[in-house]
Amino acid sequence: MLSIAVIGAGRIGRIHARSIAGHARARLAGIADPDEAAAGDLSTACGTAPITLDEAFAAEAVLIASPTPTHADYIERAAAARRAVFCEKPIDLSAERVRACLEAVARAGTTLMVGFNRRFDPSFAELKRRLDAGAIGRLETLAITSRDPAPPPAAYLAQSGGLFRDMMIHDFDMARFLLGEEPTTLHAAASCLVDPAIARAGDVDTAMVTLTTRSGALCQITNSRRAIYGYDQRIEAHGSAGLLRAGNARPTTLEIADAHGFTTDPALPFFLERYAAAYRAELDAFIAAVLDATPATPTGADGLRALLLADAAVVSAQTGGVVGLDAPG
Amino acid sequence: MLSIAVIGAGRIGRIHARSIAGHARARLAGIADPDEAAAGDLSTACGTAPITLDEAFAAEAVLIASPTPTHADYIERAAAARRAVFCEKPIDLSAERVRACLEAVARAGTTLMVGFNRRFDPSFAELKRRLDAGAIGRLETLAITSRDPAPPPAAYLAQSGGLFRDMMIHDFDMARFLLGEEPTTLHAAASCLVDPAIARAGDVDTAMVTLTTRSGALCQITNSRRAIYGYDQRIEAHGSAGLLRAGNARPTTLEIADAHGFTTDPALPFFLERYAAAYRAELDAFIAAVLDATPATPTGADGLRALLLADAAVVSAQTGGVVGLDAPG
Amino acid sequence: MLSIAVIGAGRIGRIHARSIAGHARARLAGIADPDEAAAGDLSTACGTAPITLDEAFAAEAVLIASPTPTHADYIERAAAARRAVFCEKPIDLSAERVRACLEAVARAGTTLMVGFNRRFDPSFAELKRRLDAGAIGRLETLAITSRDPAPPPAAYLAQSGGLFRDMMIHDFDMARFLLGEEPTTLHAAASCLVDPAIARAGDVDTAMVTLTTRSGALCQITNSRRAIYGYDQRIEAHGSAGLLRAGNARPTTLEIADAHGFTTDPALPFFLERYAAAYRAELDAFIAAVLDATPATPTGADGLRALLLADAAVVSAQTGGVVGLDAPG
Amino acid sequence: MLSIAVIGAGRIGRIHARSIAGHARARLAGIADPDEAAAGDLSTACGTAPITLDEAFAAEAVLIASPTPTHADYIERAAAARRAVFCEKPIDLSAERVRACLEAVARAGTTLMVGFNRRFDPSFAELKRRLDAGAIGRLETLAITSRDPAPPPAAYLAQSGGLFRDMMIHDFDMARFLLGEEPTTLHAAASCLVDPAIARAGDVDTAMVTLTTRSGALCQITNSRRAIYGYDQRIEAHGSAGLLRAGNARPTTLEIADAHGFTTDPALPFFLERYAAAYRAELDAFIAAVLDATPATPTGADGLRALLLADAAVVSAQTGGVVGLDAPG
Repeated sequence: MLSIAVIGAGRIGRIHARSIAGHARARLAGIADPDEAAAGDLSTACGTAPITLDEAFAAEAVLIASPTPTHADYIERAAAARRAVFCEKPIDLSAERVRACLEAVARAGTTLMVGFNRRFDPSFAELKRRLDAGAIGRLETLAITSRDPAPPPAAYLAQSGGLFRDMMIHDFDMARFLLGEEPTTLHAAASCLVDPAIARAGDVDTAMVTLTTRSGALCQITNSRRAIYGYDQRIEAHGSAGLLRAGNARPTTLEIADAHGFTTDPALPFFLERYAAAYRAELDAFIAAVLDATPATPTGADGLRALLLADAAVVSAQTGGVVGLDAPG
Repeated sequence: MLSIAVIGAGRIGRIHARSIAGHARARLAGIADPDEAAAGDLSTACGTAPITLDEAFAAEAVLIASPTPTHADYIERAAAARRAVFCEKPIDLSAERVRACLEAVARAGTTLMVGFNRRFDPSFAELKRRLDAGAIGRLETLAITSRDPAPPPAAYLAQSGGLFRDMMIHDFDMARFLLGEEPTTLHAAASCLVDPAIARAGDVDTAMVTLTTRSGALCQITNSRRAIYGYDQRIEAHGSAGLLRAGNARPTTLEIADAHGFTTDPALPFFLERYAAAYRAELDAFIAAVLDATPATPTGADGLRALLLADAAVVSAQTGGVVGLDAPG
Repeated sequence: MLSIAVIGAGRIGRIHARSIAGHARARLAGIADPDEAAAGDLSTACGTAPITLDEAFAAEAVLIASPTPTHADYIERAAAARRAVFCEKPIDLSAERVRACLEAVARAGTTLMVGFNRRFDPSFAELKRRLDAGAIGRLETLAITSRDPAPPPAAYLAQSGGLFRDMMIHDFDMARFLLGEEPTTLHAAASCLVDPAIARAGDVDTAMVTLTTRSGALCQITNSRRAIYGYDQRIEAHGSAGLLRAGNARPTTLEIADAHGFTTDPALPFFLERYAAAYRAELDAFIAAVLDATPATPTGADGLRALLLADAAVVSAQTGGVVGLDAPG
Repeated sequence: MLSIAVIGAGRIGRIHARSIAGHARARLAGIADPDEAAAGDLSTACGTAPITLDEAFAAEAVLIASPTPTHADYIERAAAARRAVFCEKPIDLSAERVRACLEAVARAGTTLMVGFNRRFDPSFAELKRRLDAGAIGRLETLAITSRDPAPPPAAYLAQSGGLFRDMMIHDFDMARFLLGEEPTTLHAAASCLVDPAIARAGDVDTAMVTLTTRSGALCQITNSRRAIYGYDQRIEAHGSAGLLRAGNARPTTLEIADAHGFTTDPALPFFLERYAAAYRAELDAFIAAVLDATPATPTGADGLRALLLADAAVVSAQTGGVVGLDAPG
C-alpha cells in the first residue's frame, strides 16, 4: 500500500483523491488546500482528513493538483523530502523553471510522473499498443484532433499560458508518444474565431500545427476551443500497412432514426467524463511505478519536451514562420 | 445479343426497359402496353418502338412487367412460343394457378426466371456468398427486417394479395435462399397499426413470422408498411463462427454533428433507389441464363415456394396457430 | 445511510458488495456465505466482516445473491423480520413458490426489488425514457437480441431452469418493461445447435419467441448461448414516428483499416463488463426506494410475470403451439 | 441536345464517352485519338465513330481527355473555333501557359469548364450545400484527407508534375470551393515514404499542407500515395455551430462480426468507382452550362488558382518555409 497525500482540492484533486481512497494498493494520507472548506469537504467525502502542506510532504507520495504556479516549488519540496511525486501538467509555464525543477528531481533521484492523462485513455493506449505491435507497419502520418466543448472562463485563460501551452500541450505529448521520435520542425497557424475576448487577452482559440520528423513521418494537430457536439478527441495514425483511429466516446449506444436520418449521442461532454478511465489508469501506473519500481512515464522530461513544442508553436504562430527544433539533450 | 421485348410500361417496366436499352449483351425489341401513351413515351426514351403483344412474343425473350393477373397467362403464352421469360413477382396469387403455369413451362422446356430482386442486391448477394464460403460457420439464426416507407395506395392494396403475398413474399424468398433448406413450420402474428383502411380492406400492415427448419436453424421476419426514416431492408445471419449483416444504403456518407448528436442520412427512399443495382444484376443474370445457358434462378419453383409460405402465413395469422409445411415435391 | 447485508459471496455478490462498500448512501453490514473462505476474502476486500445469516437478517436491508433455490426462503425470512430485500433474479423457478413468497412480502408490507439489471443499462434506460417521451410515437414492434458469448458449464445448466427461465427471462422482463402492456399470446421455437450436451440435459440453446399484445404491438426475442464476437445485447423499437435502437458497447473506440476492411472491437465479453453501470444503477434505485420511499421496481410481481412468460415459452417450444396468456391479476 | 466530341480514348475518355452516349441531353459526335484502335473500340462500344481532330473541333462542344501536354493547345483551338470546352484537369503544368490559354478563351468568350470532379461527388456536394445553408454556422477549420490506394506507375509520375500538381491539386480546388475565400499563406511538409523510386524522380509521396485565410479560417490537407484499405477521400468541416463530414463509400453495407471484432468493407478501390456519380454529375453541369447558359464551374480561373497553390506548395516543401499567396486578380 502506498500512502499518498493530495495537494489541491479542486476539480482534478477531487478525481484523484476519490480514486486513491478506493484504490486497492493505495491509502489517502490526507488532503491539503489553503481553502479549508474545500479540503474539509473533500476529506469527508473520501474518509480522510485535511492536512497541512508539511504533513502532505511527510506522506510516501504526493499528488500535486494545485494551481500551476505552485507545481515546480512543490515538486522541488517533495524531491528534497525524497517523496515520489505525481504532478498535474504543466510542471511550469517557463521551460527554464521546468529545467531547474527537473535537475532538483534528478539530484534527489526521486520519482516524478507528469499527468498527461491521454496516454492512459483506453482507446488511445490501445492505439499505441497496436502501433508498437506493427499493426499498421511503419507510421507515416499522424492526425490529432482536439476540440474543447467551449472556451474556459477569461480568468482561467489569463493565467493558462495560452492555447498552445494549456491545451495543445496534451497533443504535443501525444504526438511525441505516438511518433516515437522527436519532431524536427514545427509550423503553427492560429486564429481567434470563437470569442474576441480571447484575442484581447492575447490568445488564440483555433490552431493547426504541422510537425516533421527525421524519419519523414508527418503530424498534424488541430485545436479549437469550441465544439458544440461535445468534447472532440480523436487520433488517426496512417502507416504503410493500414490505418488506426480512435474516436469519441458517447454516453449511450442509442440511435434514433426519423425523417432527419439516424442520430447517435453527442460526444461525452468534457474531460472529466471522457478521461475518467484515463485518470484511474494513470494513478495505477504511478502507484505501480513507486511500489513495483516500474518506469514512471510520462516523465518530467516528457513534460519539458511538450512545453518546448508549445513554446515553438507560440513563436511560429506569431512570426508566421517555421521553427526548427533542437534535438533533446 | 439477346433481343428482349418488355411487356408493361409502368414503374418496373421502365427500369427494365432502360437497362435493356443500355445493356452490352441485349437489344430492346420493343415495349408492349395497352396504355399506348405509356408505351410510346417509354419507347421514345429507350430508342425503340411500341409493339403489340403478338410482336412481343415473337422476340427471343420476354420480360413481363405487366399487372399480376396477367403474369401466368403471358408466361404460358411465351412458353408455347418457346420464348425465354423473365417475370416480375408474383407469378400469380393462386398457388394452383402457379402450378399449372409452371407445368406449362416445364412441358415447353423453356427458361423462366422470377424477379426476386433482393437476391441480386450487392450487399445481400455478398452476404450469401460469404455464408456459402463458411464465413460464419453453420447458420443458426436468420433475422430479416423489411419495412416500406409508407403504405401503398388503397387501390393497389385491394389487388395486391395482402402483406404476406405482396410484400413478405420477398422475405420468404430470401429466407429460403439464405437458409438453404425448406422451412418446416411457420408462425405468423400480424396487426393493423398503420392505417385502419388497411384493416377494412382485410389486410394487415405489421407482421412477424417465425420459420423453423429440419436442421434446427430458426428465422424471424418482421414487416411494416411504415418507416419514416426510409426504406428499411436489413438481414442478419448468426452462425457458429460469427455474425453477418447487411444494412441500409444511404444517399450520401454525410454526417452532421451538433448539440443533438451525430446524424447521418435517412435510408434510401424506396425500392427503385435501394434496388437499382439489383435490377441491373438480375437482368444480367437472365441474359446470361439465356445466352450462356447458366441456371435461371430464382426459378418458377422458387416463386411457388415463396407463395406457399405466404399462404401459410395468412392462415397462421388468421387462426393464431402454427402451420406445418409440406416438403416440396 | 442504509445498512445492507449481502448474502452470497459469488460472482454477483462480489459486484454488489463492492458497490455497497463504496456507496455514498449505504454501509456494508457484512457478508454471509456458507463458504467461509469466500465470505472472508470478499469481506476483507470490502472492509467489512463475515456474518451469519442471523446477523444478515438483522441489517436494515438484505441483498440476496445466493443460489436460486435459497431465494424464496430468504425473502420470506427477511419479510418476517421486516427487512427491505433486493433479490437477484429469479425469485424461484416455480411460479407457485414465487406466488407464496410474494404473498408473504405483501402481508409484511416490506420492500422487495428484483435484480433485472437490464432495465438499468444506461442505453436501454435511455431508450425507455425516449420511448415514454414519445420520440418514436406509438410503439409498433420491438426486437430484442440477446446472445451469450458461450454456454454456461453443464453443472450450472442442470439447475438453471433452462434457457427460457434462466436467460430469456431477462428479455421477457425487458419486453414487458418496454411494451408497457402484458403480452396476450406467446410462440416459441427452439433448437439445440451449440452443444449436444445441452440437449441431453433437456435444454435448448437457440430460441426465438414472438409475443402479441392487446394493442397489436408485436415483439420478437432471439436468444443464443453462443456469440463469438462478444456478449450481444441489443434492442430495437420501431414506432409510428421512427426507430430507436441501443446496441453493444465495446472496450475501445479503436478502428483499424487494412486490406480486409475497417474493423472495430468485439462487443464487451459478458454481463459483468456490459452491465457494470447497470449493477450500480439498480443498487442506487434500491437504496433510494428504501431511504426515499420511491417505487422499488422491478417488483416481485415483475419477477413473477417474467417467470410465467418463461413457463409459457417452455410449453410452446415443447408442444410447437401458441400459448395464450392470462391477464395478470 | 448538345453534340459533344471526345478527344482521348483513355481511361477518363472512356467514362465520359459512355456517359455522353447515354445522356438524355447530349449526343456523342465521335471520338478522336491518335491511337486508332483505341478510338475505334471505344466508338463501337458507344455507338459512334472515330473522328479526326478537325472533325472534333467541328462539334458544338469538345471534351478534352487527352494527355495533359495537349490540353492548352486544344482549348485554344476550340476557343478559336468558338466551341464550348470541358477539359480534364490540369489545363497545363505551367501557370504561365494556363494564363495564356485562359486569355484566349476570354477573348473568344467561349465556355470552359475544368474537370475537378470532386465538387460533384454527391457527398461532398451535399456537404457544400449544407455549409452554404448555414448548417454549421461560420466555417472555422477544414480538413481534407486524400490518399491514393497505391502510387501510379513511374512513367506516369515522370510527366505528372509531381504530387502537388497532380494529386493535391484536387484538394486545393476543394479547399477553395469550401472555404469560399482565397488562402493567404501556405505551408507544405512532404516526404518520400512509400517508394524510393518516387524520391529518385524528384517527387514526394506523403504531404501535409496548411492554408490560412484572411477571415482566420484554417485548412489542413493530407495526402499519401498509399492506402491499403482503399481510396481514402474524406472532408471534415468544423464551424461555429457544428461539424460536417463526408467519408468513404464502400462496395456493400456488409458487416461481419467474429472474434476479431466487427469488420466492414474496405473503401471503394479508386477514383473510377468512388467518383462514378461525380463524373456523371459534372457532365450534366457542363451540358446545362452550354444549353441553359448556367455558370460553367469549376472555371478556367479555378484551374489556375489550384495550380498556383500547387506551385506554392512545391516551393514551401522545398524551402521548408511558409509561402505568402497573392490575391487573385
